[in-house]
Amino acid sequence: MPQSLETIRHSLSHVLAAAVLKTFPEAKLGIGPAIENGFYYDFDLPKPLTPEELKTLEKKMQKIIEDSFKIEQFSKSKKNAIELLKKDTQSYKIELIEELPDPEVSFYKFDGFSDLCKGPHIKNTSELKKVGWKLDKIAGAYWRGNEKNKMLQRIYGLAFETPEDLRQYEQMRAEAEKNDHRKLGKDLDLFVFSDLIGPGLPLFTPKGTLVKELLQTKVENICKRFGFDKVMTPHLAKIKLYEISGHAEKFSDELFRITSRHKQDYVMRPVLCPHQTQIYASKPRSYKELPIRYMESEKMYRAEKPGEIGGLNRVIAITVEDGHSFCRVDQVKQEIKNMVEIIKSFYTDLGMWDNHWISLSVRDYSNLEKYIGESKDWDTCEKILQEVSDEMNLNAKKREGEAALYGPKLDFMFKDAIGREVQIPTVQLDFATPKRFKLSYINEGGKSDIPVMVHRAILGSYERFIALLLERFGGAFPVWLSPVQAIVLPVSDKHIEYAKKVADELKEVRIEIDDRNESIGRKIRDAEIQKIPYIIVVGDKEEKDDNITVRERGSKELEIQKIGKFLESVQKNIQ
Amino acid sequence: MPQSLETIRHSLSHVLAAAVLKTFPEAKLGIGPAIENGFYYDFDLPKPLTPEELKTLEKKMQKIIEDSFKIEQFSKSKKNAIELLKKDTQSYKIELIEELPDPEVSFYKFDGFSDLCKGPHIKNTSELKKVGWKLDKIAGAYWRGNEKNKMLQRIYGLAFETPEDLRQYEQMRAEAEKNDHRKLGKDLDLFVFSDLIGPGLPLFTPKGTLVKELLQTKVENICKRFGFDKVMTPHLAKIKLYEISGHAEKFSDELFRITSRHKQDYVMRPVLCPHQTQIYASKPRSYKELPIRYMESEKMYRAEKPGEIGGLNRVIAITVEDGHSFCRVDQVKQEIKNMVEIIKSFYTDLGMWDNHWISLSVRDYSNLEKYIGESKDWDTCEKILQEVSDEMNLNAKKREGEAALYGPKLDFMFKDAIGREVQIPTVQLDFATPKRFKLSYINEGGKSDIPVMVHRAILGSYERFIALLLERFGGAFPVWLSPVQAIVLPVSDKHIEYAKKVADELKEVRIEIDDRNESIGRKIRDAEIQKIPYIIVVGDKEEKDDNITVRERGSKELEIQKIGKFLESVQKNIQ
Repeated sequence: MPQSLETIRHSLSHVLAAAVLKTFPEAKLGIGPAIENGFYYDFDLPKPLTPEELKTLEKKMQKIIEDSFKIEQFSKSKKNAIELLKKDTQSYKIELIEELPDPEVSFYKFDGFSDLCKGPHIKNTSELKKVGWKLDKIAGAYWRGNEKNKMLQRIYGLAFETPEDLRQYEQMRAEAEKNDHRKLGKDLDLFVFSDLIGPGLPLFTPKGTLVKELLQTKVENICKRFGFDKVMTPHLAKIKLYEISGHAEKFSDELFRITSRHKQDYVMRPVLCPHQTQIYASKPRSYKELPIRYMESEKMYRAEKPGEIGGLNRVIAITVEDGHSFCRVDQVKQEIKNMVEIIKSFYTDLGMWDNHWISLSVRDYSNLEKYIGESKDWDTCEKILQEVSDEMNLNAKKREGEAALYGPKLDFMFKDAIGREVQIPTVQLDFATPKRFKLSYINEGGKSDIPVMVHRAILGSYERFIALLLERFGGAFPVWLSPVQAIVLPVSDKHIEYAKKVADELKEVRIEIDDRNESIGRKIRDAEIQKIPYIIVVGDKEEKDDNITVRERGSKELEIQKIGKFLESVQKNIQ
Repeated sequence: MPQSLETIRHSLSHVLAAAVLKTFPEAKLGIGPAIENGFYYDFDLPKPLTPEELKTLEKKMQKIIEDSFKIEQFSKSKKNAIELLKKDTQSYKIELIEELPDPEVSFYKFDGFSDLCKGPHIKNTSELKKVGWKLDKIAGAYWRGNEKNKMLQRIYGLAFETPEDLRQYEQMRAEAEKNDHRKLGKDLDLFVFSDLIGPGLPLFTPKGTLVKELLQTKVENICKRFGFDKVMTPHLAKIKLYEISGHAEKFSDELFRITSRHKQDYVMRPVLCPHQTQIYASKPRSYKELPIRYMESEKMYRAEKPGEIGGLNRVIAITVEDGHSFCRVDQVKQEIKNMVEIIKSFYTDLGMWDNHWISLSVRDYSNLEKYIGESKDWDTCEKILQEVSDEMNLNAKKREGEAALYGPKLDFMFKDAIGREVQIPTVQLDFATPKRFKLSYINEGGKSDIPVMVHRAILGSYERFIALLLERFGGAFPVWLSPVQAIVLPVSDKHIEYAKKVADELKEVRIEIDDRNESIGRKIRDAEIQKIPYIIVVGDKEEKDDNITVRERGSKELEIQKIGKFLESVQKNIQ
């Protein structure tokens, strides 16, 4: 953020601390930095704050600003500073000072309030008059982020250069909250959690499972056209498997270990690739058989930090769509082209292809020794990736140092609902894994040779991808992906029979009837919350004329249609 | 087995021991009982036996039989018996005698050989002349089955009343071995194991995965017609879930426990039902919504004893097709009828319905207190099951004491490849689980009510079911289930192009080309081993006439056909 805005935010945190001390003279102060979008300050207070008290604090801050206090810096020796703070019983600040290396420490003061601080700050509180700011919320925060310490009360504030900037930010945030996948997942009834099962373990309802399966079928159908075969491998293995692959070390903090009363001690797999190597390795392979391509949509497991688990973005049982091609060096280029075609086809169908860029992630050439494998293989493959980019007009941007340890890759970057960049699909070359697992094939000359392994992710994990899609579309999935494509709303109970007839004639569409004893207005609102593409209303008139009144999602217009005609247009839309 | 045959087998084990002592005077004897199909005897020998030595032992046994020794019983006091055995350094026998409660112990002797034994035995070794017997194999066996003890050498023998009986048994056994699903799974390349992954954890190859998915699609399509929705639930949960369901206690020995560096300690689920209750419980339900029916094909886990793990019949990660209906009492009858229809439809398609019987498994009426739930609910539901049997002409046989603890059930019994009865599909009523999980719905009167849970298994676990099908069909799956439906065999390399053209025209069939540089005879034999339904040979003549020579599985006849005509007949066969 610009230096001046950071200074404004930082000074506001001091103004907040001053206002808090006016209200609670016994308050102990933690730290109060500027952050993205505003600032916060941590306090040890005699009681939990209420939202009303935030309002009162805001008024006191306003008064300080209007009183136009000069903000002045002064220094003290560490010893004197500690004495000063001891008088005020500011034990947290003392702890901080004791760790400072310098003999002198800096303070800022105004209106009788002084605070340990390196600065910089604005010159006068009156400079905050033109700023757009407000106190935002209260949250608990352990002193110094350590759960063994006392939990303090953190007051968050928002601050932007102008009130208009603040208004725009709040509007954008409200929009993002409305589109939060956790809220939309509930509105659309896609997934649920259970305290008895545990955090990070979503249960997919029938509708959520349908969305997952529609995505899976789409990926698999595209991949089958390019020679991928489905396999099914177990979710656990001896730790030995990952010692060979290197994942035991890489994921040592995230491993789930399994024990039983027998001496069969396993781990839950943190990745899928090693399992697929074992199918390849199960019999001798000839150059004629290659490429051998496996894919599966199964689970892997990571013991994420409990505090980081949430929604579908961070789960501990991760359903990944993963696939690998085992091929000869002379086949690598075509394999990569195929995988780019697969990715392009999938994201085009989702209307997301136009808005992406591709990274050609190569070695850090100043630090070549950290990569696994022969330099000449790397040269060949980086060259191949560049050729693929040129020949397919991918316009991939070369990024040094972004390669995986075992090979270069193409990473595809998309934008999420609020404009952040997310990387999902990837095509990665891997020379190391086949060597580690001693994979081989008999080449045309009758000699043993090592295959190249090409990793590819299309949609990554279903959990994260569904979260991303939910937020991107605000829950309004394309019709083909909508778990409920149309809903029939009988105006009253006496139209339920006709509603059933309509639903029956439209059974090729995923259709529901809302037969609850509710007003038609309520039924329409509930269908809108579920983002159902077509709302069909049937009452006396529709029943008499044997037709339906249709409202398409996002439109306020009602259209009277014959059922057959409607079906035709929906089917066209789905294709 | 008849008493006389058991006696014959037992006496043969003594004859074997006598023959072993003639060969290895220092041999220490373990035990030597009669068993199903024959006998065995455990020996502590100075060297591992070779198959040739078995032949020599057989000859020495033959000699003992032909020499017509009288077999005589005698008794000794424990003390004298121990002294006698000490002289012979028979330490294992001494260990056995020391544990006997009686003051006197019994021996049998012939030809200078005497053995601790309660009998009975035949009177004279000559009685064995008419018997069909042979030594079968050698295996290791821990003394008294305890792995902390020394490993002895166990010699197995086969024995039947007549040589003809022995011949028939060996023929049957050879047949069973040929049809062992482990062998067939390898021949058809359906599944593999990896030492790095671990025992009991099969990896399904592309062909095996295809078979699994074809079965899954078939079950799911039938179930969807009856209102089942797919769900997807995680494979682990807090132990709390199973403490409530009762499975934590029931499967305490088979539970896999999961730990990580965080305080998230889970177990791998030993069953699926509790997860599905949590989707039901995720929101309020109305009587109008019921029945709610969930199904999924996912994994559950049991820590089986390492010694019992093998093939697909006993795995530790079990892929189950499981489903439940949550319904009102007045819906139970129709739900059960639907489930019977599903089972009938599935097994009819597999050609297995004609050969089954159904058990109506009810309470043990002399021990009613051991069952969970209200007696009147049980009465109602046992009555409903009987009515279903009557109305659908199921002819179910009432079996008392075979109910589950939580409700009565219908069990469907089929025959496996060697005529053993196996129970796979089941429909079970359950009053207990909904109560344990406090499941509820608002009934027509606006009051809270408890749903009934109906469990149903159609094919059970995919692993066991595929093993059963492999053995039942000897690998020759019906055409719709064959992973490879046809294979094209070019007579020589110059016919490969034409073979590709043929395969391309038949791409609606799952077809492969055998383009190895092998003789046509070898190619045909290999295709036969894989039990491929249609073998297509193409050579000069076929290429010239633009047709194919087809050999159908199980037939020796070759038929020259036009490609289009062949495709038609295959497609008809698949339907």
